[in-house]
Amino acid sequence: MGKLTHFNSEGRARMVDVSGKESTERVAVAGGRVRMQPDTLKLIQAGKMKKGDVLAVAQVAGIMGAKKTSDLIPMCHPLFLTSIDITFIEYPEPGNDGLASIGVEARVKTTGQTGVEMEALTAVTTTLLTIYDMCKAVDKGMIFEEICLLSKTGGKSGEFKRA
Amino acid sequence: MGKLTHFNSEGRARMVDVSGKESTERVAVAGGRVRMQPDTLKLIQAGKMKKGDVLAVAQVAGIMGAKKTSDLIPMCHPLFLTSIDITFIEYPEPGNDGLASIGVEARVKTTGQTGVEMEALTAVTTTLLTIYDMCKAVDKGMIFEEICLLSKTGGKSGEFKRA
Amino acid sequence: MGKLTHFNSEGRARMVDVSGKESTERVAVAGGRVRMQPDTLKLIQAGKMKKGDVLAVAQVAGIMGAKKTSDLIPMCHPLFLTSIDITFIEYPEPGNDGLASIGVEARVKTTGQTGVEMEALTAVTTTLLTIYDMCKAVDKGMIFEEICLLSKTGGKSGEFKRA
Amino acid sequence: MGKLTHFNSEGRARMVDVSGKESTERVAVAGGRVRMQPDTLKLIQAGKMKKGDVLAVAQVAGIMGAKKTSDLIPMCHPLFLTSIDITFIEYPEPGNDGLASIGVEARVKTTGQTGVEMEALTAVTTTLLTIYDMCKAVDKGMIFEEICLLSKTGGKSGEFKRA
Amino acid sequence: MGKLTHFNSEGRARMVDVSGKESTERVAVAGGRVRMQPDTLKLIQAGKMKKGDVLAVAQVAGIMGAKKTSDLIPMCHPLFLTSIDITFIEYPEPGNDGLASIGVEARVKTTGQTGVEMEALTAVTTTLLTIYDMCKAVDKGMIFEEICLLSKTGGKSGEFKRA
Amino acid sequence: MGKLTHFNSEGRARMVDVSGKESTERVAVAGGRVRMQPDTLKLIQAGKMKKGDVLAVAQVAGIMGAKKTSDLIPMCHPLFLTSIDITFIEYPEPGNDGLASIGVEARVKTTGQTGVEMEALTAVTTTLLTIYDMCKAVDKGMIFEEICLLSKTGGKSGEFKRA
Repeated sequence: MGKLTHFNSEGRARMVDVSGKESTERVAVAGGRVRMQPDTLKLIQAGKMKKGDVLAVAQVAGIMGAKKTSDLIPMCHPLFLTSIDITFIEYPEPGNDGLASIGVEARVKTTGQTGVEMEALTAVTTTLLTIYDMCKAVDKGMIFEEICLLSKTGGKSGEFKRA
Repeated sequence: MGKLTHFNSEGRARMVDVSGKESTERVAVAGGRVRMQPDTLKLIQAGKMKKGDVLAVAQVAGIMGAKKTSDLIPMCHPLFLTSIDITFIEYPEPGNDGLASIGVEARVKTTGQTGVEMEALTAVTTTLLTIYDMCKAVDKGMIFEEICLLSKTGGKSGEFKRA
Repeated sequence: MGKLTHFNSEGRARMVDVSGKESTERVAVAGGRVRMQPDTLKLIQAGKMKKGDVLAVAQVAGIMGAKKTSDLIPMCHPLFLTSIDITFIEYPEPGNDGLASIGVEARVKTTGQTGVEMEALTAVTTTLLTIYDMCKAVDKGMIFEEICLLSKTGGKSGEFKRA
Repeated sequence: MGKLTHFNSEGRARMVDVSGKESTERVAVAGGRVRMQPDTLKLIQAGKMKKGDVLAVAQVAGIMGAKKTSDLIPMCHPLFLTSIDITFIEYPEPGNDGLASIGVEARVKTTGQTGVEMEALTAVTTTLLTIYDMCKAVDKGMIFEEICLLSKTGGKSGEFKRA
Repeated sequence: MGKLTHFNSEGRARMVDVSGKESTERVAVAGGRVRMQPDTLKLIQAGKMKKGDVLAVAQVAGIMGAKKTSDLIPMCHPLFLTSIDITFIEYPEPGNDGLASIGVEARVKTTGQTGVEMEALTAVTTTLLTIYDMCKAVDKGMIFEEICLLSKTGGKSGEFKRA
Repeated sequence: MGKLTHFNSEGRARMVDVSGKESTERVAVAGGRVRMQPDTLKLIQAGKMKKGDVLAVAQVAGIMGAKKTSDLIPMCHPLFLTSIDITFIEYPEPGNDGLASIGVEARVKTTGQTGVEMEALTAVTTTLLTIYDMCKAVDKGMIFEEICLLSKTGGKSGEFKRA
């Protein structure tokens, strides 16, 4: 295994030097899921029929959250993001635990010297937090699962694709 | 079940009116977990022996993240937070899937008209994102699980305790 | 007429001292309007039928913008906002200049020592800017008009109601 | 007419992909106006004689506001701005409605893959909001008018010049 | 001597719990100084005669900086500030080292459960940084000295007055 | 001596136009020092032995502060920073005034059209402010000294090295 790159020679954290890295197009896709009472999902789906749309608010929050990544994560480099897209999949059928769920996927692009894995993951967590916030009056037990990087391309470390 | 309170009479989102709610002491505790290769956890633990400390950076990020909650989550009220505390539990023993993990717990307090569930959850996700960022050079497959509200006290909706 | 209160004895700007003011409930309502090609309004209205909804995005932006007021306006006090609500009226009939328009109204509440006029006005301008941004690919000539305070209540300076 | 580009295939909002666009020098100029009691303008002008200067504060706010554009407007790309300049014209002669006014013009430049129309417009609205804030103790009836893009150059969509 | 209060029982940092503290009026005054070539001070003073005013910009920055304190300093509580005032004293006479200087003083007030020492100090450093930024084209050797808390009142720890 | 470049032809402040400047690698190093009671330094050093580490928190704050520079300093350009590193030197031996001290040095890099002097200085002041905040319960008399640019390379104005 490698060694952690965020520590300087004194052993304290630093923002790693990327000035020698090539500027290339980089894409990262991250995903996650929020599990909830089936009735909560029904309320969200019903809202979508009207102008009220929990997922529309959550998606705006996710896009804005991705842009705040370097402000939130101490060692992240500020980046010019060229594209952010967030999509949802609804799973109304209750699983073994009786819960329905919504899957979130965020795809972020940049042309730069570092990747956008953190921006994609931050988009996902901010989207999920907003869904929780907008539904917590009816379902405080919602739970986030399987938040992870799904794939990345570009950059020296090459491609990553989750098995 | 109740109805979603973040929509106005046109069906669009609004920040709900809390001006009629009492100002009381409110506490929320949220938790989450990041699963990782056992070697990644060993690197984190070794770093802790020196001045370099992934969890120290993640914890600072989590505290600062909690203070940004109303900036991240569209319908959240800005709040005066009176206390934020974040703790970790390390699980070096691999589970059935061969992964070790670190559990994160955030406890947030306010005296005000709305609760701090979102602040506690945002502290947890920001802490987890920072752990991922600082270790992603060696382990891109890390995954966040079980992010949820563990308990809350104070306010009209009363106590919540996760089963 | 009175004198400007944002200058100190040296003649430079300062954040005026409100520590002697009473904490009361304060409400401010501001309005504004964006004029556009009738076809642009039709595209916005058509979008609303599907999940895509320019006004939903603009409204989220307006609410988040109101929360950033003290960060944008140098002499504004940071405030705990207890309620923000934004509504729209569509005017599809072209006026004398051949333009349709959308009216925006923002209503903001606080319990505190200063009013929320600036928060209501900032909600309106941010909402209008977002409508412009989302439609500028088809109509760069859109124009904002009649952005003003409509009413305020609470506080020492008493009620204001636009004639 | 074209089609709105901020919606993805699901019909929800996204930050449009500019990664295929060329990096060129882009300039945008936006304008606006605040109408006020002639006595309010006199107070502002008198203040300018001393160190206190409403327009100096408003101009700093406008420049800082332009830098916050991608944080305020959900679908805006973060950008490296290379120049921001804000100028004023004072109209002390009352119009038909008895009001004097101040005109604001903001000129913003970047070298990048997207234009700076939103940055120029945000500079204008933030400047106007600050003028309002600093004078609202004496004139709550001030009103913003004619906020619009005056011109832009650079980029695929080419030149725009308001008639 | 006491013990550091920003660490939790694990020895990691936390935001200390102030929920048991009384809400009282608190004032803090901080000061600092920037030393510079006498000609730099002359340029600043000359600028003040015209509309251009380095100190006016620096003072706006200092006030806005004070409002960002809890965003900059990890363990600081967010606060409602009721007053911020920044004043300058110019020392054109060169000292033994041949340098002139400008002294900065920031006075901040709140009614709340924690003091505003950090807000006053952050106002001073932001003001000084802005003076440096606006003059660095002519004098990169400017140096900040004597940044410290001058006095505080209110709160359990009582009065502090620098000797 | 030159002339101040942050003022436009009206004499008001502007963000200077750097669009004609070459994009080159630029490095800036800034330093500063906080003087304190020798016992305060001993508490900090003792904390470092455990997980609690004042300097670790201060260093994270300094890195995050550097990324906020263009948000804090009105006329600063937003920049893509490629590297930030902060180091400390402890001086436990009391000087003539009986005070010990900690020296802070920040080194910041970019590839761009403007330098990073302000980012390095902002990293230093934010680091020092955080040390003060974390120790102020035991030593309110701490004082910051000698905050200055130590060196810069790259850009048209060439090298600077403090004598």
